[in-house]
Amino acid sequence: MVDEVVLLDLWASMFGMRVRIALAEKGVKYEYMEDDWRNKSDLLLKMNPLHKKVPVLIHNGKPVCESLIIVQYIDEVWKDKSPLLPSDPYQRAQARFWADFVDNKVYGVSRRVWATKGEEQEAAKQEFFEIFKILEGELGDKPYFGGETFGFVDIALVTFYSWFYVYETFGKFSIEAECPTIIAWAKRCMQKESVAKTLPDQKKVLESLLSS
Amino acid sequence: MVDEVVLLDLWASMFGMRVRIALAEKGVKYEYMEDDWRNKSDLLLKMNPLHKKVPVLIHNGKPVCESLIIVQYIDEVWKDKSPLLPSDPYQRAQARFWADFVDNKVYGVSRRVWATKGEEQEAAKQEFFEIFKILEGELGDKPYFGGETFGFVDIALVTFYSWFYVYETFGKFSIEAECPTIIAWAKRCMQKESVAKTLPDQKKVLESLLSS
Repeated sequence: MVDEVVLLDLWASMFGMRVRIALAEKGVKYEYMEDDWRNKSDLLLKMNPLHKKVPVLIHNGKPVCESLIIVQYIDEVWKDKSPLLPSDPYQRAQARFWADFVDNKVYGVSRRVWATKGEEQEAAKQEFFEIFKILEGELGDKPYFGGETFGFVDIALVTFYSWFYVYETFGKFSIEAECPTIIAWAKRCMQKESVAKTLPDQKKVLESLLSS
Repeated sequence: MVDEVVLLDLWASMFGMRVRIALAEKGVKYEYMEDDWRNKSDLLLKMNPLHKKVPVLIHNGKPVCESLIIVQYIDEVWKDKSPLLPSDPYQRAQARFWADFVDNKVYGVSRRVWATKGEEQEAAKQEFFEIFKILEGELGDKPYFGGETFGFVDIALVTFYSWFYVYETFGKFSIEAECPTIIAWAKRCMQKESVAKTLPDQKKVLESLLSS
């Protein structure tokens, strides 16, 4: 049977980009369907009735929801190429811990950097750098979060890089000035075709946000 | 090498109970160390410096944090006995989805049932039953969430059962009246020794909360 793989997504979704990078790493061909966040498709509501959110991977008619769960699913189904999670159970647990940290910390604070003002925004800016410095500490001297090879935590985090210009514009700060190690890591990830071809241009993300 | 397994925990933590059930299912011997939520131990702060939360599993000196990540770790390390996650990738993704749903929905709303008053509490009570009815729908006619055998989603959810009397007392409602299928499922889980020996008495949890 030929796999039928469909991805319901939004082009500027950092969660959707994770799935696109994982599929690209594995060389999986798929049909990309852009949804409409203002007017969600019937297919999205049917495939993810609880959360009603992209990304949804539909594999042979069956939906998988939640980006980090989808990436693990992709890693388990197409397991012969480009392993994304380490094989060692302890390293796997560490990868899950840091991907979870990104989900629980980075998204919320990043959003507050551009979507709030005044004191709330100032607090968000401070917290933003606290979180990224923790991530820099975890990265250390390694090329990637998992070590020598690009993997699960890199996928979880690097998609936010496409929004860095949004954060910098609204936050009136330079991420490179505060967190040069993260920028160097992001540029290293961008040398991978799976990442470079997936992440939209940072200015396009800002323009889209400003015109929405 | 003999495995050295230590669990830092709090007896009434539904997150810690998940780990205790998983260890019991696998027949793993471990040292239980009760922490103090008013005065966290140096060991806890050293082993989980980011979240500073129990449970932490320390396996041969190395910490694993976050209950669902720990349960997956236990399942991967002690893989020869009582598999907790299904072997099929799609079923694994579904199990992760529902365990994640429990984490993101059940804990917050349950806490609001007993920790808030007035309108906020009324809204929490309504949402509590909406969430449990969704869970009843997912359970359907199956004995356990994963099907015929007790597993990951059951572990994620059943530990809340030890707090049901708290929710009922503060919420002034009967969970069994609204969600009999969930109660029948919880009682089925309680027939398992790993669950029955782990979950504290519901009245003890209430008394402890009232005296804290």
